[in-house]
Amino acid sequence: MSLIPNNTSTIVALSTPAGVGAIGVIRLSGTQAIKIVNAVFKGKDLTKQSSHTIHFGTIRDGKKVIDEVLVSIFVAPRSFTKENVVEISCHGSPYIVKEIIKVLIANGARLAKAGEFTQRAFLNGQFDLAQAEAVADLINSDSAASHTAAIHQMRGGFSAQIKALREELIHFASMIELELDFGEEDVEFANRDDLKQLINNLLTAINALIQSFDLGNVIKNGVPTVIAGKPNAGKSTLLNALLNEERAIVSDIAGTTRDVIEDEINFEGVNFRFIDTAGLRETTDTIEAIRVERTQEKMKTAALIIYMFDLSVEPITEILKEVNRLENNCKPFICVGNKIDKADPAIVDKLIPNEHFVLISASQKSKIDNLKSKIMELVNLDNFKTGDTIVTNIRHYDNLLRTRNSLQDVLNGLKNNVTGDFLAMDIRQALHYLGEITGQITTDDLLANIFSKFCIGK
Amino acid sequence: MSLIPNNTSTIVALSTPAGVGAIGVIRLSGTQAIKIVNAVFKGKDLTKQSSHTIHFGTIRDGKKVIDEVLVSIFVAPRSFTKENVVEISCHGSPYIVKEIIKVLIANGARLAKAGEFTQRAFLNGQFDLAQAEAVADLINSDSAASHTAAIHQMRGGFSAQIKALREELIHFASMIELELDFGEEDVEFANRDDLKQLINNLLTAINALIQSFDLGNVIKNGVPTVIAGKPNAGKSTLLNALLNEERAIVSDIAGTTRDVIEDEINFEGVNFRFIDTAGLRETTDTIEAIRVERTQEKMKTAALIIYMFDLSVEPITEILKEVNRLENNCKPFICVGNKIDKADPAIVDKLIPNEHFVLISASQKSKIDNLKSKIMELVNLDNFKTGDTIVTNIRHYDNLLRTRNSLQDVLNGLKNNVTGDFLAMDIRQALHYLGEITGQITTDDLLANIFSKFCIGK
Repeated sequence: MSLIPNNTSTIVALSTPAGVGAIGVIRLSGTQAIKIVNAVFKGKDLTKQSSHTIHFGTIRDGKKVIDEVLVSIFVAPRSFTKENVVEISCHGSPYIVKEIIKVLIANGARLAKAGEFTQRAFLNGQFDLAQAEAVADLINSDSAASHTAAIHQMRGGFSAQIKALREELIHFASMIELELDFGEEDVEFANRDDLKQLINNLLTAINALIQSFDLGNVIKNGVPTVIAGKPNAGKSTLLNALLNEERAIVSDIAGTTRDVIEDEINFEGVNFRFIDTAGLRETTDTIEAIRVERTQEKMKTAALIIYMFDLSVEPITEILKEVNRLENNCKPFICVGNKIDKADPAIVDKLIPNEHFVLISASQKSKIDNLKSKIMELVNLDNFKTGDTIVTNIRHYDNLLRTRNSLQDVLNGLKNNVTGDFLAMDIRQALHYLGEITGQITTDDLLANIFSKFCIGK
Repeated sequence: MSLIPNNTSTIVALSTPAGVGAIGVIRLSGTQAIKIVNAVFKGKDLTKQSSHTIHFGTIRDGKKVIDEVLVSIFVAPRSFTKENVVEISCHGSPYIVKEIIKVLIANGARLAKAGEFTQRAFLNGQFDLAQAEAVADLINSDSAASHTAAIHQMRGGFSAQIKALREELIHFASMIELELDFGEEDVEFANRDDLKQLINNLLTAINALIQSFDLGNVIKNGVPTVIAGKPNAGKSTLLNALLNEERAIVSDIAGTTRDVIEDEINFEGVNFRFIDTAGLRETTDTIEAIRVERTQEKMKTAALIIYMFDLSVEPITEILKEVNRLENNCKPFICVGNKIDKADPAIVDKLIPNEHFVLISASQKSKIDNLKSKIMELVNLDNFKTGDTIVTNIRHYDNLLRTRNSLQDVLNGLKNNVTGDFLAMDIRQALHYLGEITGQITTDDLLANIFSKFCIGK
């Protein structure tokens, strides 16, 4: 199989979400796209129209009118795929969409595979692989932070950085390859100290990208946050107080929001995935051990722990013992003192100066904002707001790790004064891994794997 | 409230189905549509572009890029609503759609109400009311027959017929009004015999339309078909045999089919709604009466009855007794003799010549096509294929009934030689009801009622 899979065929698919709506858009791409649509279109002769123009008419199956449509013409190379592209805007009925696609297939188009439009755009040089992957991330983005990261990557920010790293390395690689050409003559075109310096600089940059993945993962999948505490501490009440408010904001614009994922809340553009600690509900002593174990397990998966205390019943000594345990746990945590309205003022006075504590009344929705501020402080919002490149894709992360290993092999080689051919091998390996990120180096398997995860019509 | 509700505002909505997809289309309509989009668009100056052109650029909220988009410009009156219309084709992410709509609202657009785009198109004379209603029917059409009826109505077939009827009546109405102007002078401009002839012609046409509603209802909602018979006669096996085959065809084109409604099957463009007769599963004699009653009830709602017999066990005398009952039931029915592979050949020989019978083996999927042919024969497919106007809308049906009543009042008046002013009153009433169908006569309530049933974005 070639990297250019049957590129002469014209592909067709519904590009808007499936279902009933005012309009649906069917997209075709390929040399014959305009010709195929023209064969079933009654209106102007589409083959004679300029690029980026829209034409009203009907799509027909023989004499039968399937629908009144608007047809948008994009003449190669001025299109998403750089091929001829036609978009048919029809009434948003699944039946009509099916009938139109059927008649287009009867006239020479074939159904597009998942991601095939984007794959063609990549193969025709519209953008590189990391940018193509960002298109999928962009479609799935559901918070300001994940959206910002995806837009940055789609518009080439990440690719530019990877390419710059790669070019620096290519320069040295070519010097060393040159040495190899001279074989026995024992010349050194590539200064070993300069090379060492370069590799160290590259490692610094790559380490920064690798470290950004933790953040990138949080941006893409939300901050896993465990709400823990004794039964009746007010965990559900707090969760509802947080959820209700945000849900009201989300539902302002009808028809645009997807079904709310239970317990996922967005603060200032960052998603928080709240994890229930149901295990805490059991209270008999015999299963106390299990209770602790379960909670510990949940806490391990958390990036942030919110630990709630019922100030109206829990004694201050017990509270401070638990805080001590949390401190030893080495995870960011916030202690929430709940039910301040029913608490002993002496306890409240003791906890106010404690930097770990936010004192609230969940049922009265009092001081919830203080808690939110504390949460945002801990996740360090600044990380989400910079234009810095953040790695969100596990494939990129994996390749960066491999690149780092190869570069470390180069460093070790330099230390041990290995010959140029060994150095060249490791540098080529590093170049290969970096090149795979942007698609300067690809294999069929790699492409198939990436694009098959796209939706049909993209 | 005026019939032109705040028509100077610019409305915005997502016009494609909600959800994640390759692209989503956001539509704006109103005087300021192009100006508002231009304020958040980085690319060419949209206010200087010709109608029916497409422009690539980014939508921004301040400096933040929300998305790379294609913007289609339609300059009034060359648009769906006859106002300035802009369609923004963005990446199909609910988050992006929400952010773009938010920034458009911040720049002066307001969220469209359900059906508001189509309502504006109607108010601006793009089409009449019956055509606007057909747009909603078209979007919801899910079979060739309902699609054909909706397209015919949207393209003005039904409206033309109603308008023709109305104009004939208007001619006479004006003659009679003229008589009234002359008051005491006892002149007759409108020949009473001609008027009688006209009313009779109109009644014939209106009766044909009223009668078409039964068919129209079936087209829109499917043919209610009861599968009856004793337990173990093979009803479910038959249903599955029919369903599986059709489902396979439907799923040929991925992403276009909505969730299959259990037990709804499409043959040759007509939907059949199969109704289960679960009541037949009880077999104890004590509840035999209830069993019969339930089945009778279900049969009452059916337009077609498929009665199954297990030829391997049911005696021929019982079978023929049941056929006799079905004949007295006055509903179209088909008798299915199942399990021919296990049946006594003598029984099979007796039933072959019986016109009511189709002999099959449901489990072996044998002779199922014969049953389908028989079904299509009974529902009289020709009705579904003509270009004749078929009334599918209950509002239209209702108004046609009222028109008929008023016309009958006119006929009665003529018979009793009532004076012109009484005749004029009834004729005006008939004109009113006909006019409401196409929207030549409207009220705010009527419009609100019709358009609020549309989806947002249409």
